[in-house]
Amino acid sequence: MLPRDNALATDLYELTMAAAYFENKETTEATFELFVRHLPNNRSYLIAAGLEQAVEYLRDLRFEKQHVEFLRNQPSLKDIDDGFFRYLQEFRFTGDVWALPEGTVFFAKEPIMRITAPIIEAQIVETYLLSTINFQTLIATKASRVVQSARGRDIIEFGGRRAHGIEAALLAARSSYIGGCVGTSNVLAGYKFGIPIYGTMAHSFVMNYETEEEAFSRFCKAFPSNPALLLDTYDTVKGAQKAIPFKPSLVRLDSGDRFELSFEVRKILDEAGLNETKIFVSGDLNEYIIDDLTSKGAPIDAFGVGTELVTSRDDPALPGIYKIVETRRDGRRNFRVKTSEGKRTLPGAKQVYRKFAANGEFEEDILALRDENPIPAGTPLLTQIFKRGNVIYNAPSIRAMRENALNNVSRLPLKYMDLKTIQPAPVVISPQLERLTESLWENPEHGTA
Amino acid sequence: MLPRDNALATDLYELTMAAAYFENKETTEATFELFVRHLPNNRSYLIAAGLEQAVEYLRDLRFEKQHVEFLRNQPSLKDIDDGFFRYLQEFRFTGDVWALPEGTVFFAKEPIMRITAPIIEAQIVETYLLSTINFQTLIATKASRVVQSARGRDIIEFGGRRAHGIEAALLAARSSYIGGCVGTSNVLAGYKFGIPIYGTMAHSFVMNYETEEEAFSRFCKAFPSNPALLLDTYDTVKGAQKAIPFKPSLVRLDSGDRFELSFEVRKILDEAGLNETKIFVSGDLNEYIIDDLTSKGAPIDAFGVGTELVTSRDDPALPGIYKIVETRRDGRRNFRVKTSEGKRTLPGAKQVYRKFAANGEFEEDILALRDENPIPAGTPLLTQIFKRGNVIYNAPSIRAMRENALNNVSRLPLKYMDLKTIQPAPVVISPQLERLTESLWENPEHGTA
Repeated sequence: MLPRDNALATDLYELTMAAAYFENKETTEATFELFVRHLPNNRSYLIAAGLEQAVEYLRDLRFEKQHVEFLRNQPSLKDIDDGFFRYLQEFRFTGDVWALPEGTVFFAKEPIMRITAPIIEAQIVETYLLSTINFQTLIATKASRVVQSARGRDIIEFGGRRAHGIEAALLAARSSYIGGCVGTSNVLAGYKFGIPIYGTMAHSFVMNYETEEEAFSRFCKAFPSNPALLLDTYDTVKGAQKAIPFKPSLVRLDSGDRFELSFEVRKILDEAGLNETKIFVSGDLNEYIIDDLTSKGAPIDAFGVGTELVTSRDDPALPGIYKIVETRRDGRRNFRVKTSEGKRTLPGAKQVYRKFAANGEFEEDILALRDENPIPAGTPLLTQIFKRGNVIYNAPSIRAMRENALNNVSRLPLKYMDLKTIQPAPVVISPQLERLTESLWENPEHGTA
Repeated sequence: MLPRDNALATDLYELTMAAAYFENKETTEATFELFVRHLPNNRSYLIAAGLEQAVEYLRDLRFEKQHVEFLRNQPSLKDIDDGFFRYLQEFRFTGDVWALPEGTVFFAKEPIMRITAPIIEAQIVETYLLSTINFQTLIATKASRVVQSARGRDIIEFGGRRAHGIEAALLAARSSYIGGCVGTSNVLAGYKFGIPIYGTMAHSFVMNYETEEEAFSRFCKAFPSNPALLLDTYDTVKGAQKAIPFKPSLVRLDSGDRFELSFEVRKILDEAGLNETKIFVSGDLNEYIIDDLTSKGAPIDAFGVGTELVTSRDDPALPGIYKIVETRRDGRRNFRVKTSEGKRTLPGAKQVYRKFAANGEFEEDILALRDENPIPAGTPLLTQIFKRGNVIYNAPSIRAMRENALNNVSRLPLKYMDLKTIQPAPVVISPQLERLTESLWENPEHGTA
């Protein structure tokens, strides 16, 4: 992993805009919202994740001397006076932040985070916040789908080697756990986040010995308590037969027709009296394949899911965006929208209110202005995280985040669980927000309230 | 970005296997090769990248005291004696490494890296090496495709906000540059790797002011030398007309029908005498869309490509694998293969020889055993990087890596450049390797030479 230089982990245009605001002595306080315009392929809901890393970033953000020197020497900033660079050296995030707690189910158009700060500060943090929240939300959502498809069997995240680098592997393990996995193969995720870690053996261990039996014997010598053996290095069925004398507590199948093989291996184990031995299946799995296996009753106890989970392979980028929704300058409040083709936004700092049916099931969300009067019915979802630059939020444990996600998902009506069709959840725009939006879309450049 | 704890950035099974080898007093020296079994969707070639980060990892790999304590307390390692944990505390990588220099074109089955070391060392490094090389190779390859589609126009990497976290954003910028981009919006990539950085303005800057003209005027006040203006916040054509008085050096179009709009905006600029003003296009671009725009002669000077590039969206995971190919124990050399269904491997430590036609064009590769006699004709591609744990490779500058990639690609016959069909390149298995492979696939468990 590479060392921290978070202040520079941003797009250059955040800094050119910051410089332009500084040169213009811009005093605006701006509110930006981070949200998703459309749901990704086949998804009817999203699981919020990544807040913890976002909070650490905002809390610790500093431009070190060497960062400022680097910027001072950029040709693209040659027009900028020294005052701006001195400002950067003193830079602190001093704003307010509201966000969805990690593990919260949410939908398109709903803010996952809302930031109010002097406009330079709110602008500079855009790229980092998007990057960390987009990615972890993407993976927590994918994990939730995979967990649903397993019908109660355990899912372990296995994808470090195909993640987009070492940090992506670590954060994929974290967000997979929040989304409902029981653990990960990623040791660092265990070390840093306390996530349960799991591991068996690889084909190379079997291949290092003259025979499969010798490999199994060597492994069981080191791990007598609960040996887990990999069966498919040469031939899965023969591998199962050779494993019997070692009484493994778990066997892993990593290739071939895992539906047929799981029955064959279960039979071999049971006939040898190894009814307690678990069958663990891995190898290019995803929610669609697992759904097929579990719906047909394959005797599989748990799954390891790698590549498809940690890259969200069927839709590998969450299109979260960060848009200015209102500004305050000289005591005047201005509402802001963008009307680019296909990219219209809703104005104003917002809150999301969630309504449940009598049986506890999710019913609908109401998207309203933050300070609407009367306050809409329902539970407000955005929680205050920073107040004037200070963290006022007590983050729950990662176990509690995972429980939150599982609980949120369990309250969704079944129709939202379909793996292959998007069921748009009712997100109702409040009448006040509706009226404001309509007037601004007609005349976007003059949004004074 | 998160702090370094590279030793734990691995799958648990690498450590359970290491423990089992240690308990068995395993003295085997093993050779592993990192390669890709099949090419990703629509790709006929790959661009090697990520070696620099792999070298730093192997050179600096240490288990700190707190890492070892963490492992000692894992339930899954409770059978393991203290000797193993003491071994980890002294762990150093002492092996030999050969690899393709970054920017080298290569194909399926060809090793991008070959490692020979005591088997525990060679095993422990698997996950990290795969993660860093898979990702960067994936993105350098995608960048090469995007650059080809631009027909000589500049491509700038723009995708930090949709990359899989902050480190992925940084490494995507690096590998995109190696693959042929002219630069990135990622400031950190400029700081750490010396890659040229670029940036303009965002919609939020325009939205912060009462009118588009005011926003343009404010921005040009700060950047009088070469102002770059974004035109599509409200309406691209009207935005272009409003931009004229500010004589921008560059205008950016980020939404709508960019083919039609580029002509309209070019006309508006030219009629105002701004023939030198460049048109820069961004917004959900990929090689297929850019190919369409440039083949039809759209008057666009450069492109910013984000999400699709940094996630390699049309195929977001490179299926690179790391397989044991031979071992040496008690002076005896053993060749290794795996015969799992659909996952057979080629035995033996290998070298790749590249042959060119008289006109300098790529002709074919020969995949041969490392120590084949006679040595096959052609240029050997794998270069020695580590010798007994010491780096003996002088890495070229990142500019030279990029030149290497552009040069390698320019020597590929045109048929390999097709964006939509895979043209399998001739990778010839040498007769000696062929014979060895056939005999081992028949009897995989006894591969003694």
